[in-house]
Amino acid sequence: MNPMLDAGRAVLAQQPFSALLGTELSVLEADRAVLDLPLRHDLLQQSGFAHGGVLCSLADHALTFAGGSALGTAVMIPELKIDDVRPALGKRLCAKASVVHAGRSRAVVRYEIDAVQGGEHKLCAAAQGTITQLAEPRKQG
Amino acid sequence: MNPMLDAGRAVLAQQPFSALLGTELSVLEADRAVLDLPLRHDLLQQSGFAHGGVLCSLADHALTFAGGSALGTAVMIPELKIDDVRPALGKRLCAKASVVHAGRSRAVVRYEIDAVQGGEHKLCAAAQGTITQLAEPRKQG
Amino acid sequence: MNPMLDAGRAVLAQQPFSALLGTELSVLEADRAVLDLPLRHDLLQQSGFAHGGVLCSLADHALTFAGGSALGTAVMIPELKIDDVRPALGKRLCAKASVVHAGRSRAVVRYEIDAVQGGEHKLCAAAQGTITQLAEPRKQG
Amino acid sequence: MNPMLDAGRAVLAQQPFSALLGTELSVLEADRAVLDLPLRHDLLQQSGFAHGGVLCSLADHALTFAGGSALGTAVMIPELKIDDVRPALGKRLCAKASVVHAGRSRAVVRYEIDAVQGGEHKLCAAAQGTITQLAEPRKQG
Repeated sequence: MNPMLDAGRAVLAQQPFSALLGTELSVLEADRAVLDLPLRHDLLQQSGFAHGGVLCSLADHALTFAGGSALGTAVMIPELKIDDVRPALGKRLCAKASVVHAGRSRAVVRYEIDAVQGGEHKLCAAAQGTITQLAEPRKQG
Repeated sequence: MNPMLDAGRAVLAQQPFSALLGTELSVLEADRAVLDLPLRHDLLQQSGFAHGGVLCSLADHALTFAGGSALGTAVMIPELKIDDVRPALGKRLCAKASVVHAGRSRAVVRYEIDAVQGGEHKLCAAAQGTITQLAEPRKQG
Repeated sequence: MNPMLDAGRAVLAQQPFSALLGTELSVLEADRAVLDLPLRHDLLQQSGFAHGGVLCSLADHALTFAGGSALGTAVMIPELKIDDVRPALGKRLCAKASVVHAGRSRAVVRYEIDAVQGGEHKLCAAAQGTITQLAEPRKQG
Repeated sequence: MNPMLDAGRAVLAQQPFSALLGTELSVLEADRAVLDLPLRHDLLQQSGFAHGGVLCSLADHALTFAGGSALGTAVMIPELKIDDVRPALGKRLCAKASVVHAGRSRAVVRYEIDAVQGGEHKLCAAAQGTITQLAEPRKQG
């Protein structure tokens, strides 16, 4: 039993977009998260690779769960950079995220997204982001 | 008639993931693209806002189309940074992308994503990315 | 008279590294800052262009001052992305920063860095960053 | 003897800005670079910490040398994201960069910058960037 993982899966189950994608939360520990996403036709672009938007979506998920493991559950705002490195071809995508540094209200997270085929992992994207607990808005720009 | 827009829409129609999201290409000109995404329950997170992954996906689309308008159609690899600024609540998302600078093989693009409700636009995310035409791979890291 | 500009210049004058570079604060208003940096041999790389680190440094300055104009003076932590677009050749660099969105504790800022020669501005780098007021540290990763 | 390190140090010695900072190239191997920067009063901000611009500059250096180790010497254009995580206080900064993925014309690099005091390393910034060999310019935006 892993209460943190159970709680994370409960959050994931409440997100309609995560259900649409089919994202699975495989590991959730302090400062670390692993997410899997089985690939299917719906998630591809015109050349048969996973769509860039799918990689971005998974990156956003990984940031949120890894960052949330460090900061706790609260209203948080993300910021991330993602570098695609190779077209993503495989049976599933696997995102591994780890917290580089966490303060009280802000965590810096790094993650890699692999395409997995026949047990072989190939790096498809590397990302880095921050997640910040927000105070109340001061003004709207 | 706008041949560039027609060609862009034809590419979009070939992308299964774009169809799954429901992304619409509204404007495609030299160095500029506007994309719309009607929001529906499937695209939300647990609090009723557009999921961060949806914003990321739309950012990826906007980068690709604006960058492609500057560089032409070819195998390209993206890299982007996205800053969420406000929860996205509305009838649709609208991403406006413009090319800041384009060389022969690399374009820098900026884009904003608004949530639109009753004619009112509210900025939800600001992003900047590059798209690069790749030479053949030299090695696999 | 502009008390915000005067206060900003006073902060700049207290920073030994800003003096080493020779950074000048030309404009500081609510949500906007312009900084100039006269180029000299010391600030170049081996080909006679401004060193990439100089552009990064100026980007960091611009983020801090524009973000500080929105958030007020406090301990803040920056995060930024910079895209170089062209080698920087000129008499000076000029960074123009504007706040895209400011909440109570976090501002998103965009800025462009031009190389200026004989009155002509050429874009050399485009950047986007966030600056966040930090709460007390919770843990050290 | 390490011909790659010797060649890298020769490049560094030709950069006036690197001399102004005092950057030292400690390690240069295939896909890896370590740079050190002794801190002195000139490199600080008003609170006695290393200036954010110094961290950015060192990040730019580390990206260039690690990326150059993978791509070879050529005209390259960088793009990077840097997350400061903690004020930098120490005798020197140490940047460790490693290549995450390298193609023929583009490398993705990650690096950490530590502040070093009495043998203790404390992470101050985490960064990720790409360096791209450019074709000839097509147009000037």
